[in-house]
Amino acid sequence: MTDAAAYRNPQEPCFDIAHLAHVEVLTDKFEESLDFFTRVYGLTETARDDSSAYLRAFDDYEFATLKLTRSTTTGVGHIAYRTSSAAALERRVAAIEAAGFAGEWVEGDLSHGRAYRFKSPDDHDFEIYWETNPYQAPDDQRPALKNLAQRYHGRGCCPRRLDHLNLLVRSVENFRDFIVACLGSRVTEQILLDSGQLAGCWFTVNNKTYDIAVTVDHKQASNRFHHITYATDQREDILRAADIFLENGVHIETGPHKHAVQGTFFLYVWEPAGNRVELANAGARLILRPDWQPVTWTESERKKGQAWGLKTIESFHTHGTPEVE
Amino acid sequence: MTDAAAYRNPQEPCFDIAHLAHVEVLTDKFEESLDFFTRVYGLTETARDDSSAYLRAFDDYEFATLKLTRSTTTGVGHIAYRTSSAAALERRVAAIEAAGFAGEWVEGDLSHGRAYRFKSPDDHDFEIYWETNPYQAPDDQRPALKNLAQRYHGRGCCPRRLDHLNLLVRSVENFRDFIVACLGSRVTEQILLDSGQLAGCWFTVNNKTYDIAVTVDHKQASNRFHHITYATDQREDILRAADIFLENGVHIETGPHKHAVQGTFFLYVWEPAGNRVELANAGARLILRPDWQPVTWTESERKKGQAWGLKTIESFHTHGTPEVE
Amino acid sequence: MTDAAAYRNPQEPCFDIAHLAHVEVLTDKFEESLDFFTRVYGLTETARDDSSAYLRAFDDYEFATLKLTRSTTTGVGHIAYRTSSAAALERRVAAIEAAGFAGEWVEGDLSHGRAYRFKSPDDHDFEIYWETNPYQAPDDQRPALKNLAQRYHGRGCCPRRLDHLNLLVRSVENFRDFIVACLGSRVTEQILLDSGQLAGCWFTVNNKTYDIAVTVDHKQASNRFHHITYATDQREDILRAADIFLENGVHIETGPHKHAVQGTFFLYVWEPAGNRVELANAGARLILRPDWQPVTWTESERKKGQAWGLKTIESFHTHGTPEVE
Amino acid sequence: MTDAAAYRNPQEPCFDIAHLAHVEVLTDKFEESLDFFTRVYGLTETARDDSSAYLRAFDDYEFATLKLTRSTTTGVGHIAYRTSSAAALERRVAAIEAAGFAGEWVEGDLSHGRAYRFKSPDDHDFEIYWETNPYQAPDDQRPALKNLAQRYHGRGCCPRRLDHLNLLVRSVENFRDFIVACLGSRVTEQILLDSGQLAGCWFTVNNKTYDIAVTVDHKQASNRFHHITYATDQREDILRAADIFLENGVHIETGPHKHAVQGTFFLYVWEPAGNRVELANAGARLILRPDWQPVTWTESERKKGQAWGLKTIESFHTHGTPEVE
Repeated sequence: MTDAAAYRNPQEPCFDIAHLAHVEVLTDKFEESLDFFTRVYGLTETARDDSSAYLRAFDDYEFATLKLTRSTTTGVGHIAYRTSSAAALERRVAAIEAAGFAGEWVEGDLSHGRAYRFKSPDDHDFEIYWETNPYQAPDDQRPALKNLAQRYHGRGCCPRRLDHLNLLVRSVENFRDFIVACLGSRVTEQILLDSGQLAGCWFTVNNKTYDIAVTVDHKQASNRFHHITYATDQREDILRAADIFLENGVHIETGPHKHAVQGTFFLYVWEPAGNRVELANAGARLILRPDWQPVTWTESERKKGQAWGLKTIESFHTHGTPEVE
Repeated sequence: MTDAAAYRNPQEPCFDIAHLAHVEVLTDKFEESLDFFTRVYGLTETARDDSSAYLRAFDDYEFATLKLTRSTTTGVGHIAYRTSSAAALERRVAAIEAAGFAGEWVEGDLSHGRAYRFKSPDDHDFEIYWETNPYQAPDDQRPALKNLAQRYHGRGCCPRRLDHLNLLVRSVENFRDFIVACLGSRVTEQILLDSGQLAGCWFTVNNKTYDIAVTVDHKQASNRFHHITYATDQREDILRAADIFLENGVHIETGPHKHAVQGTFFLYVWEPAGNRVELANAGARLILRPDWQPVTWTESERKKGQAWGLKTIESFHTHGTPEVE
Repeated sequence: MTDAAAYRNPQEPCFDIAHLAHVEVLTDKFEESLDFFTRVYGLTETARDDSSAYLRAFDDYEFATLKLTRSTTTGVGHIAYRTSSAAALERRVAAIEAAGFAGEWVEGDLSHGRAYRFKSPDDHDFEIYWETNPYQAPDDQRPALKNLAQRYHGRGCCPRRLDHLNLLVRSVENFRDFIVACLGSRVTEQILLDSGQLAGCWFTVNNKTYDIAVTVDHKQASNRFHHITYATDQREDILRAADIFLENGVHIETGPHKHAVQGTFFLYVWEPAGNRVELANAGARLILRPDWQPVTWTESERKKGQAWGLKTIESFHTHGTPEVE
Repeated sequence: MTDAAAYRNPQEPCFDIAHLAHVEVLTDKFEESLDFFTRVYGLTETARDDSSAYLRAFDDYEFATLKLTRSTTTGVGHIAYRTSSAAALERRVAAIEAAGFAGEWVEGDLSHGRAYRFKSPDDHDFEIYWETNPYQAPDDQRPALKNLAQRYHGRGCCPRRLDHLNLLVRSVENFRDFIVACLGSRVTEQILLDSGQLAGCWFTVNNKTYDIAVTVDHKQASNRFHHITYATDQREDILRAADIFLENGVHIETGPHKHAVQGTFFLYVWEPAGNRVELANAGARLILRPDWQPVTWTESERKKGQAWGLKTIESFHTHGTPEVE
């Protein structure tokens, strides 16, 4: 394991992985969760099979970016990234296997072709794929402007696209080494405790400021989920969403406010089954610099709270799904 | 030349070029232009040499993204992109030379190291480089949040970062073939006339929806400039900027409104020397899809005007810098 | 008739009229208009009788602020203001009769008690009333915050409250003298032509910048309607509304942009029957000054177009409802 | 004293007082406070005399809305309202004297003519006046649009106008009876404790939702000040202001967030001398209803925190100026 303080991104960026593609979220209150995600949060259901509903934001090009799966528990099912090409998929599989995280090929589901599935050190299921089944808007969802994937329907919070997810892990360093090796992700920001250990880390495979973040699971359980996030076009969409959540009896955990880390304007709520869901806006912030090196926040810096001084809410450190004792 | 209607982006994206890095703009009213860009538009001057002022937006990581150069004319000096690595620079130089656009190595200026400079079919000067001189905020510009390049100073329109530029060209097809060959850019959107010729084309080298656009120069002159654009975090920043421009006697050409092409929220003004300058906001829109294919707008579709019906202003088709008879 | 240029508001403001209360709009496409106003524009239907649907914005305290009436034509039915008290109603009736605009008492409709109805010089029907039937939110419309009249439903454009209306008149001076005499309105802004005649005038009875405006009817017809307007909380709500209108095939006439007169941020569309409908945002602008005197815009000042230079669209001068030859 | 729960506004509104006109704030760090209010908060200094700087927001019509006075302490100097007419001033003086709050005539200062000054039950100095000295913009402050009082200068947070103030009082009921009797204010919202006592009350003399609020002083001291507030046009102005405060080292106490009471979007900071200063945006919310009755919040309702669940910060209940043991 590399010393956290000394960690440097490699000078040659890896471009094999194009973007975070979809996240499977488990719910033990399927109907309520589906109502939340479609009517209140503003995603569109594109298909349903025995176990899952396939959901998407209006400008996701993929068929589904959220696979909502009926379950006896909550949390995350699997996390999928799409590669930059067919060849890149092969390269990544080789890299994953070389790094000791070998998994297996699976068939894919309604939204994409065969995928290579493998496990993180905390038993989170990841998959990568190339062949996909892009969304084809039916007539009643055809946009007025042809450069949108689907019409701007304006229902609920109506975010534009999948943004990122956050996982709870036992060791941030272990997860970092895993995702850097497997996906070629780069570290954009990190929180370094006085103990020398990382409390959190933010990663990206492209110009987004992050597509996955991990924070330490204080319960030290495996395969736990912190939140999933969609991006809105404007911060005002998030202020408006707060009223929508309020009127629909959704538990608002914290926000709207601005994170110190990454500068993201955020709002966190819990969907009916208890999974944490965020809306976020990064403004025009992108990581364009190819030799970007991690921004490291110290423990004392993080004690200042969020960007404008809001104290980080306690449940942010304690609540994950599924709940554990 | 490829048939415009049939043009397809290659399936394997090229990642050698990281991002648009800076643009040199010429002015024959140096003091007035500098006052506009710093006090009104809200850039920061980081250095000055005999001929030029080096300017940057508050979250540009580079030393300068706009080099404002004292001149007897107006328009664009040169356009620079930074590569993804030192090796990528070598690969690109080889590709440029193989494509018949060979140029020469130049020394660089205050903001970066040696660069390879070459000409477009319309005599626009392009350069690519790897070695750079990132901005180091002096004490009075140090941000409260360490993940910003410079403090949010709030002066003038205060955009976040360089976004894109637009050039006038004699043949959009020729320019496209040039930039695809030289930079590995991808076409994200294009306007195809009934005649079978392109009227405009938008390109990107990364996840931004575009970093350069070209439109046909109705004067069929060479080396002409349409506009340079910085990105704001929110659309509200642009509405506010409109009042700032109004109060400062800046000529507002058109906007604020939303482009149909690319969906960008825009505002165009002319700086004192006549160069067109834009503020733009793309919301959360990104091109994440690795196999993105061009969105083609027909002549009749473009006749509908901008996204919400605003007719494209006549001067948008006639005014470029330098002015020609 | 007072000389327009010399017109002064009386030093002692009149407070008998509390606010614009509701507008009756006629439609010859009742179902389509109702669908527009409820699903797209975002009003709520509170009742229906044989001829009309009663509609309201989410924070209107009244039962209805828009009475949409099935008709063989389009335009305005009647315009209602609520008085400040029962005694104020009596005072106003006396003033109206003294000024030569005597009308008659009518019974009121579902939304309020008896009203005094009288005609403007252009045959527009006005009414004033005191006794009202405030909105009582049913269980499914009860707001989460008890200081709202109805829950923030977030459907369609979802404006907060009725703002103002605009009528076409043959003589602005005549209308001004009428409304000043009858309602005690004050002139906040006006457009004075070089000919010495008024082209438009904006009036208020309270701290709003205007609740009614009139402009010259170039057709010199009677009882014509220019538009009705609801207020949004933020300008961003109007930018969002533009996308909603676009996706729903609503004709966007002009905007979003900012008026020079009154500084209102605006968006104009035509509902299915052709009546012009606006969304507007005045920011924090109010007329608090008790001795406010009219701001007079000259013909040459108005030729500069709207605040940020947008030329006033031609149809704004020609389209009114009902259409006349 | 009227029973708080049963308090009803009179049916006949009083219109003698037009609006809150200015507030005098005391500072024992005059230079730092002045720098804060002009450079960071974005007011304009219009004059200075031996003891005070006269400050205004860009669209205040008055010469000054904040009189910043050099002092050995902090807190509020006096609070001024302008009447609706000369006659209304006489009526109010008679009412004040009849209610047992007789004061005396004072000469006025640079911003207005003679005023009647009187004390609240908690020794706060109030004054009312009619004759005023409206702001005349000098050439360099003349607005591009003639309906603005001053140009939109865009410096600092740049709020539009004075909005309201908040005082600490020993008895909310006593203050209510005072202000209702003296100014004819109406109660728009109030917080009623289980004990039957009021914890806070919001008042208005016009269509604004409130121009003064009072909350219980837990120290039971006299003449204490909670905060002064200016209004911004948009919520985005407040989000932007948060970054300006952050970069200028201003203590952000709480926000941006939305109050449950009155629904105001808020941000509270402490100016260098410790006085609390707010920026607020009410959207399009107004009190137009002439027979508006108080909205009463119970103790348990207020325990839910602010509109979107933010807990009210502890210092909001403890910090006032001047500080007392």
